[in-house]
This record gives sequence, C-alpha cells and structure tokens, in this order.
Amino acid sequence: MKFKVYLSGEIHSDWREQIIEGVQKENLNVEFFSPVLDHDASDAAGDGLGQEETGFWRDHKSAKVNALRTRTLIDKSDITVIRFGEKYKQWNAAFDAGYCAALGKPYITLHPADLVHPLKEVDAEAKAWAADPKQVVEILKYLFK
Amino acid sequence: MKFKVYLSGEIHSDWREQIIEGVQKENLNVEFFSPVLDHDASDAAGDGLGQEETGFWRDHKSAKVNALRTRTLIDKSDITVIRFGEKYKQWNAAFDAGYCAALGKPYITLHPADLVHPLKEVDAEAKAWAADPKQVVEILKYLFK
Amino acid sequence: MKFKVYLSGEIHSDWREQIIEGVQKENLNVEFFSPVLDHDASDAAGDGLGQEETGFWRDHKSAKVNALRTRTLIDKSDITVIRFGEKYKQWNAAFDAGYCAALGKPYITLHPADLVHPLKEVDAEAKAWAADPKQVVEILKYLFK
Amino acid sequence: MKFKVYLSGEIHSDWREQIIEGVQKENLNVEFFSPVLDHDASDAAGDGLGQEETGFWRDHKSAKVNALRTRTLIDKSDITVIRFGEKYKQWNAAFDAGYCAALGKPYITLHPADLVHPLKEVDAEAKAWAADPKQVVEILKYLFK
Amino acid sequence: MKFKVYLSGEIHSDWREQIIEGVQKENLNVEFFSPVLDHDASDAAGDGLGQEETGFWRDHKSAKVNALRTRTLIDKSDITVIRFGEKYKQWNAAFDAGYCAALGKPYITLHPADLVHPLKEVDAEAKAWAADPKQVVEILKYLFK
Amino acid sequence: MKFKVYLSGEIHSDWREQIIEGVQKENLNVEFFSPVLDHDASDAAGDGLGQEETGFWRDHKSAKVNALRTRTLIDKSDITVIRFGEKYKQWNAAFDAGYCAALGKPYITLHPADLVHPLKEVDAEAKAWAADPKQVVEILKYLFK
Amino acid sequence: MKFKVYLSGEIHSDWREQIIEGVQKENLNVEFFSPVLDHDASDAAGDGLGQEETGFWRDHKSAKVNALRTRTLIDKSDITVIRFGEKYKQWNAAFDAGYCAALGKPYITLHPADLVHPLKEVDAEAKAWAADPKQVVEILKYLFK
Amino acid sequence: MKFKVYLSGEIHSDWREQIIEGVQKENLNVEFFSPVLDHDASDAAGDGLGQEETGFWRDHKSAKVNALRTRTLIDKSDITVIRFGEKYKQWNAAFDAGYCAALGKPYITLHPADLVHPLKEVDAEAKAWAADPKQVVEILKYLFK
Repeated sequence: MKFKVYLSGEIHSDWREQIIEGVQKENLNVEFFSPVLDHDASDAAGDGLGQEETGFWRDHKSAKVNALRTRTLIDKSDITVIRFGEKYKQWNAAFDAGYCAALGKPYITLHPADLVHPLKEVDAEAKAWAADPKQVVEILKYLFK
Repeated sequence: MKFKVYLSGEIHSDWREQIIEGVQKENLNVEFFSPVLDHDASDAAGDGLGQEETGFWRDHKSAKVNALRTRTLIDKSDITVIRFGEKYKQWNAAFDAGYCAALGKPYITLHPADLVHPLKEVDAEAKAWAADPKQVVEILKYLFK
Repeated sequence: MKFKVYLSGEIHSDWREQIIEGVQKENLNVEFFSPVLDHDASDAAGDGLGQEETGFWRDHKSAKVNALRTRTLIDKSDITVIRFGEKYKQWNAAFDAGYCAALGKPYITLHPADLVHPLKEVDAEAKAWAADPKQVVEILKYLFK
Repeated sequence: MKFKVYLSGEIHSDWREQIIEGVQKENLNVEFFSPVLDHDASDAAGDGLGQEETGFWRDHKSAKVNALRTRTLIDKSDITVIRFGEKYKQWNAAFDAGYCAALGKPYITLHPADLVHPLKEVDAEAKAWAADPKQVVEILKYLFK
Repeated sequence: MKFKVYLSGEIHSDWREQIIEGVQKENLNVEFFSPVLDHDASDAAGDGLGQEETGFWRDHKSAKVNALRTRTLIDKSDITVIRFGEKYKQWNAAFDAGYCAALGKPYITLHPADLVHPLKEVDAEAKAWAADPKQVVEILKYLFK
Repeated sequence: MKFKVYLSGEIHSDWREQIIEGVQKENLNVEFFSPVLDHDASDAAGDGLGQEETGFWRDHKSAKVNALRTRTLIDKSDITVIRFGEKYKQWNAAFDAGYCAALGKPYITLHPADLVHPLKEVDAEAKAWAADPKQVVEILKYLFK
Repeated sequence: MKFKVYLSGEIHSDWREQIIEGVQKENLNVEFFSPVLDHDASDAAGDGLGQEETGFWRDHKSAKVNALRTRTLIDKSDITVIRFGEKYKQWNAAFDAGYCAALGKPYITLHPADLVHPLKEVDAEAKAWAADPKQVVEILKYLFK
Repeated sequence: MKFKVYLSGEIHSDWREQIIEGVQKENLNVEFFSPVLDHDASDAAGDGLGQEETGFWRDHKSAKVNALRTRTLIDKSDITVIRFGEKYKQWNAAFDAGYCAALGKPYITLHPADLVHPLKEVDAEAKAWAADPKQVVEILKYLFK
C-alpha cells in the first residue's frame, strides 16, 4: 500500500520539509509531489517563451507553464495537502482545493486557527483541517495502520 | 439563445447590480444566479440545525448549507463571473474558479489591476479578465451578436 | 430559481408530507420526487414479470424495477434528502447516499441524534444533518433567500 | 493478470482472514485492501486534530479521516467485497456499495441469507451474493481460470 | 413526473405500437423515441451522400447516419427498452445495451424465453426482462404509482 | 422530437443560410446555433477588455471570449456540422471536431472532395461527410423520418 | 511502448491463438486478455453460489460473475478485438462493442464478409474491420512501427 | 517524478529529434510518444485490410487504424506538444488539440510566429506557445526544477 501526496500552497516556510521528514521517520510508503518551490523561478516560468511588455501577460504565461506541472501532479496524487499561511493571499491554493473538490479528489487543509472563518468554504470540502504539519504526519501515519 | 450566468465572489459592493442592470438595458436573454448575498444570513445558514460551541463548526455547517445552493447553481450555469475585491481574502471565489476549471465550465474574472499578480493562476484558466462590471456587460452583449 | 429535491429512505412515517407541506406554506419553488411509497407494492414491483420460487429472486426483480424509478429521479434532482429511522435497517437509504456522494450530488441526512455514531460515514459526506423535518424546511427556505 | 480487491464492511469477525488465506492457498495474484480494522483506532482517527465537545463532531472528523483511506483504496481496486453481519447496522458498507454502483465499479456482497430482504437494493447492483467467505474465494479462483 | 423511453431493436413486428397504446390507455406521462422504423429507408440512410461500389461502405454510411439519431435519442432518454426477436441477429440491439450499461443508463430487455441463454450477458445488466409488451406497460405503469 | 444543431467553421460563404433555409422549407424542428459570424467583430471580441501591444495577445483574448459562446453552444447541441472551405486554414474547425470527438458528440463534416486527404483524421470520427449543404439538409430531413 | 489488447467474443475456434502466436513471432510488446474460454466453466461460473431452479437465474448469476472479469479487463485494455462467427448469436460480443463505444475505447471487429450487413452498426463504431486473424496481427504490427 | 509527452503534428521536419535530444542532454525523466512518422506507411495503414476503389475509403481506413495508436498514446500522456508547420494544413494536429482540450489534458503548441492569427483558437486553450523546439525543451526542463 502506497499513497501519493501532493503538497499545494504556501512556499515561504518549511512546512513541506516538516511533513516529509516526519513521514520518513515513520518509514511510511508515501511519494510526495510539489509545485516548483523557487518563487523567482516560478514567476519567471514563462520567460523563456519570450519577454512580455506587461505584468499581466508575463504572469499569465508563467502561471500556465506552472499548471503543466501542478495539474499533472494533482491528477496523479491520491491526496492533496493544501497550506494557507497568514501573510499571503494564496488564491492558487484555494483554486487547487476547488479543483480537487470538483474531481472528488480528497484533500487536507493546513492553516492556523485564525484563518478558519475566511477558509470555511475550503474547509467544508476538506477531509481534514490540520493546524500544524505534525498533525498531517499523524493522519498519514494513521492511513497505514 | 439564452445564457445562464452565475455571479460568484465578493458580496460587499454593487457589482452584481451593475452587471444585471447593464444587461437588462441591452435586453439580453441572460438568467443570473448568485449565492445568498446577505452576509449575516450566510454566516448563520447552518444555525437552524443547532447551535455550536466553536466557530469552526458553526462556519463548517453554514458553508455546507450554502454549498447546496452554490454548487447547484454553478452546475446549472453556462458561464460564471468571479469577482475579487481588494479588502477580502475571498478564498471561496478562488475555490469556485478551481471548481469550474476542473469541470471545464468557462468563467470570467472581475478584479482591479493590482490583483493581477496574486490571481495569476486563477486568471490563467479564465476565459477573460475584466477590470470593471461594464466590461462584463460588454462581453455578454458580444455573446449575443 | 427552482430546486428539484428527491426524498429518499424510510417510508413508514409522514416525514415527506411534513417537508412538502412546510415548503408549500412558504411558497417555495421546489419540485419533490420520491420512490414508490406503498410498501407492499414496492416489494411486489417485479411480480408482473413472472412469479419466483425464492425470496431472493423476487426481491431482486422488485429492487431492480424500483431502481428504474429511483435512479432516474435522483439523477434529475438537485438535492437529495435521506431519512433514517430507528426501526429499520434502510441499507437502501445508505446506498443512495453513497450513490450521490460518488456523483458529487449534494444530500441532506434526516435522522434522530441517537443514530449519529452508526451513520458517521454517511453524515461525513452530507451537506447537512437535520434531526427533524422542520429543519429540512428551514434549509430549503434559506436556499431561496 | 492481477486483481485488486477491496474488503469493505464488518470488522468484528475474521471473514477477511478467511478470504485472504483461501486466496493464498490457491496462489492467486490478488492484492487485498481494507479499511483500518482496529475499531477503537478507527473511531479515534480524527482525535489527533483536536478534541471535540460533542460526539457528532468527533465522529465526523474520524469518518472523514477514514475516508481518505477508504476512498483512495476503493478507487484503486478492481472489485470490492462488501460484508454485512447480523449485529450491526453497517450503513457505511451500504454507502460503499452505492459509491461503487455510481462509478460502475463491480462488487460482491457477503451476508447471511436472512439479510436478503433488507439488502435487496444493495444486492440488485451487486455482481454476486456470497453467503460465506469460501464462496468469495471460489469466485476469485474462477476469475483466474 | 415524466419519463422518456427509447424503444430499441427489432423493427419487424408491432411491439412498439403495443407498448405505446398500452401506455396511452393508462394516461401515463411517457415520451417515446425510436430509431427510423422503415427498414429500406434505414438501409439507404447514407445514399444521399453518394453511391457506393461495395455493400460494406453503403452499410457503413447508413449506420453512421442512423447513429446521429439513435445516439442522440438514447442520450436524452431515461429508460431504454431493447427488443430481441427470434429471426434476426439484432447485434445493433445488443450494442445499444452495452452502450447503455457503460453510461449507467437503465434498460429493460424484451424477448421470448427461448433467447434467455444467448442473451444472458445482456440481461445481466438489464433492470428487467419482459417476455411480452404488456409486461413493459406494467412496469411503466408501476413507475408512476 | 427536436434536434439542436451547431454550425461550426468557415464564415465567408452562405452555407449556413442554405442549410437553415433548406430545413425551414421542410418544416423540421431544428434549432440552429452558430459562432459570431461577423469576421471583424470576432477578431475584435476581446478589444473591450483593453488594447494589446501585440497581435498574439489581441488574438488570444478574442479567441477566449469567442470560446465562451462556442463552447457553451456546442455543449448544448445534439449534432455539430463542421464546414471546411478551400481558402482558409480553419484550424478552429478541426479543433471543434476534436473537441466533439473527445466528448462523444456526433458531427458531420461539410467540405469539397479535394479536401478528403488532408481531412482524413477529421472525417474518420465524423458520422457523415457531406460535399454540399443540400446533403446536410437531406440528412437532417432523414433524422425526422 | 506497450499495448494491452482484450480479445472478446466467439470461443469455439482458435482465432485467439492465431493472433497471439502471430504477435509473438513479431516480438511485439502486447499483453493479451480474454474472458474465461472454457464454455462449460463459463456457463457454470455462478454455480458455486448455490443451485438454481431455473435456467434464467443460473445464466444470470454466471453472466454476472463473468462480468467481474470481463469488465475489469476491458477497462484495463487499450484496444479490444471483437470476434463474430457465423454459427452463434454472440450478443455478448456486440454488447462489449457498445460498451467500448460509449467509453471511447477503440475496438477492431473480426468477422467474415457475409456478416457485414447485420454488423453494420457495430462496424460503424469500430476503428477497423478484419476478415481474418492475420489482418489483426498486421494492424498490431503496424502500431509499433 | 516522470512526465509522459506525446509529440503530435507535422512529420516532415526533425523537430521531434531536436526535442528528444535536448531532453536527453538534460537527463530529464521524460518518456516520449509519437504517431507513426513514416508518411507513406501512415497513408497505407489500412491497406492490409483490403484494397479500396476510392481515395476516400482508403484514407478513412488508414486514419482509423492510425487512431488506434494516437488515441491510446495521447490518453496515456501527461502533456502533448502539437506542432504546426507552414506548408501543410495539419487539420489532424488541430483535431488533437481539440481532443486534449475537451478532456482537460494540457498541451503546448509549437509553430512559427506567422501562424499566430489562424491558430488563435488552438493557442487559446494551450498552456504554452513555443516558436521553436528549444523552447519546448526549456519548458520541460523547468518542469523538473
């Protein structure tokens, strides 16, 4: 038994490493996927296709190139963990949640308690809300019981 | 020929009225749907099912009751317009965008120019980005040409 | 705006009438569907196709003839209300819940509080749990707000 | 040729062991999956996400955490065996049957003869009804003929 | 409540008329659809697109033109009745059954008892087997109970 | 019985008028849909959303706005007629054919005989190839037989 | 590159061996699947679940047990070859064709020329008609070119 | 992490070799698929099934035999690259784009700048437009960052 887990959302803290290390300590058969985590590289993902005059089209191209990776990996995964932090808008994380919900793909949200109210629609479709990465590790550990 | 249009997202300004009035002036055959627009009623949507001790479960119940309406109406609609304002996080709006994208349902985003960068993944799947409600009316008018 | 609501499950009490009357008093635009509610007729639904020696095949034929109606009506409906009572096993009601969940069709459960534990998997996918028919009417009323 | 088989339902008797051992004796290439079989652990699956005041929300969280495993494994499986015993309500087993039926995933029911009548809708969509685990082994053996 | 019923299969006897008349006597709200019933016209359906040298391509073109109608009408229908007679091979009728089964669309078979063995796979996915048109009328009547 | 027919492809000749008039003469119950047929308006469909520096982005925006209409109308239609002329590349017409094929939506191609070789993959999935609009009318007339 | 090929239909001649041997001689990377080919065993597939009084239910049970294998293997396969012989009705083969067509799974028919007319609807959805097993081997060989 | 990439479209230049070699130099874990690239063999793909009198049917048979390969490989792939050259009509390439779009499968277009206008609908659904094979290699390299 093996689970494939996609780690979506915030890329400015080490929550992914915490989950991956926690899972490795437990020797669980989990394969993790992520978007590109280098922020500058992600913003420039489309630059190789030609320079743009406006921010809108530069962003547009980069977002689509990134989607080549994120869509493919979410589709391959059994479970998605979606992280929301306090500083950023992370509409892409909420977008991923809606994408998973529509396809019936289960996901776990990971966010601090003070985001409960604005994330209520996202949490309503989640299979679990975790407040810290250790709880995500606990859930993944339980799945192999 | 008739189009069904769902108006998703921010509920604190009159953008829906502007679109609906603009469309009525043009005599276009559009049927509009919306979520419940009364903010307090929306937050209390699940209260009739019993009081909750914690904010999380109150929000959870209300979000699910609202989903009975929003899911049904998005599924019935041909096109969704998704509005993001500057003040609020509106993760539910981004969630609706992801939901539409996964099902291949076309949507238009409506937001000011300074949200272009954080909304790039949401805009990347949109069929159009409009900066004000008049542009949405223009598009809808064009569809009946 | 109109909602189509299928009323699934227990057929030995008047919960359907209570919901339908409650909705009529509120003048809501809801069209209700139900399975055949005459218990003996339902058990005999397949008898016209020839008599059977064993209970298994009589039940089998009748269950399939009933499925012609129930499947069609659930598929046509926007929302399903699924009622569990205390006296009966009503595995067919739980079956309908699983059927709705797989297709992403939202449903509301209706059952007394002492069934919460054995129904936890069914409630986990529900958009709401109502303990009495009045609460279902409240939710439906809210949807038209 | 290999079949993946999910064993759903009752967790208080050794029917899973009987099927697995029977299949191993025949050297059939079957990979089996199950939900978590430790009843107390299953009821407590969500406890790591925070304590709850009420039974409803404790059950709710645990049912959803369990769904992360059960949904994923049913989706991966070719065939599901669904066991109903006499003592328990096992609405979750009937839910799994409805879930499989909606997705066109074939399943086998396993239950004693005196449950034939209340399970008629569940059996009507099954590819086979087995009265004891040996019959399930017989069917699986036949599939490799 | 209304059902849409597609009448597939054999076109050399009056079974369709019998069902339609039986349903009209009962005043049931059923809308019936059928393929083109004029055998020669059906074989010549593609002739207007140009003459063919070989029987294979004449048949090929006509079968595809007919599929424009049959596919559309099966897709629109809630229930399909599929008739097999003794004289003809009617592989198209069995094809329609497989098509319905794959899409989860319920169907009823209509055929004499001596075809039970060769039709076992087709009957296995049917919701009912009727031996004469009156039984089909009985089932349709029951659906409106 | 009614058919909805989408007329896709070339917008520089009067083939749509010929089909619509032919069908009207026969009093067939067909509802026709088309993309916006005014070439300049179509190329400028996105201009109301802001001027672009480059041809690529102007085209991009207009193509997406047009997709709001074309996708919706193809999805609503039972049958699509796809016209290829000799002068233009009409990759959008071939795109519509692939879109229909993937969704199992039947389509008819309409093109002169000298395009048979380059259109072989498109014709291979079509239900019919017509060389002139009269043949399309003939097929539609046949569907109502 | 590897193809999975399901060999459906007639089980009284050695056409499967001819195809498999032909493919082995060419060293093509093809994995073949088939239904159970022992006719008596296939008819008795459900006997282990209890004896039946009537032929209908014996056939019914066996057909469903066989479906556990055939459905799973068709779903796993990339291409299905469907064989029709002159002596038998083989409605199950036509059923498999309809099943494949509905799911967009490509299939090849294999039958003598004098079955062209009654099989026209089945051939109309096929990607190829082969008159003998060597032609099927030719096609499979071509796919690896 | 591995990506499967299908290379669709023009078969008269060495763009596939350029991409494959570029990817190999970077040691990326990409598995490439293509249609049959031998033009004459592709046109003759159906000849083994019997000679045809007319070009239409010869083309028809060959296109369908080729579809056995192309459909299967596109379905297996994560990403499709679709190449349009200046000399040919390549409606099959645009057909593949529409096919991918309908199924939500991401694709990249590869074509010179002077094809931007006629390809606008195809580019509108693409995740990226590359003007030369090196840019495709750049994107694939980025996906493994």
